[in-house]
Amino acid sequence: MKNNLFAGLTVSLPDELTEVLCRSSGVRIERIVSRGHCSPPGFWYDQAETEFVLLVKGRAGVLFEGEPQPRVLEEGDWVEIASHARHRVEWTAPDQDTVWLAVFC
Amino acid sequence: MKNNLFAGLTVSLPDELTEVLCRSSGVRIERIVSRGHCSPPGFWYDQAETEFVLLVKGRAGVLFEGEPQPRVLEEGDWVEIASHARHRVEWTAPDQDTVWLAVFC
Repeated sequence: MKNNLFAGLTVSLPDELTEVLCRSSGVRIERIVSRGHCSPPGFWYDQAETEFVLLVKGRAGVLFEGEPQPRVLEEGDWVEIASHARHRVEWTAPDQDTVWLAVFC
Repeated sequence: MKNNLFAGLTVSLPDELTEVLCRSSGVRIERIVSRGHCSPPGFWYDQAETEFVLLVKGRAGVLFEGEPQPRVLEEGDWVEIASHARHRVEWTAPDQDTVWLAVFC
């Protein structure tokens, strides 16, 4: 069996899609699909886990607290987000799917 | 800072390239770049860890022991390889880079 990260994407995507692909001994691997979605105003992610996130497809702007501008992520870009490093998704491409692979550990 | 999974690929690639991108509490995330490389005859990977592997770019054939044919992996395909599930890379595309993201945990 194999699976594809781009499979099962629907025409309508009212909310961001998050699916756990794999879970093993303290690790969780997720596919996240955004289509113009972003973090609500004033919201910051503040996670207990370390997150490694790869932008596989699409485009996004991720703002880290204390940085003047969002980091623009494009295909193949990845960042390691330390535990409790506050960040938010400022924007994702409105006209295409942005597909993320996130590893939480 | 951000990093790109496709950065720093060289013209010459005599051996398969493996780099640890991130290491955290029992998890290791690697980029592997193959260009026609495959497992030596008779060699089987037999790993103590679980491996989640995503083929980000390129094409490869991965044979699992007991299966009649290699699974052909293309862009976006991923497999979860259980601990000690013996497998080998039968082939990778000879004419392009095959870029893997592997999570060992």
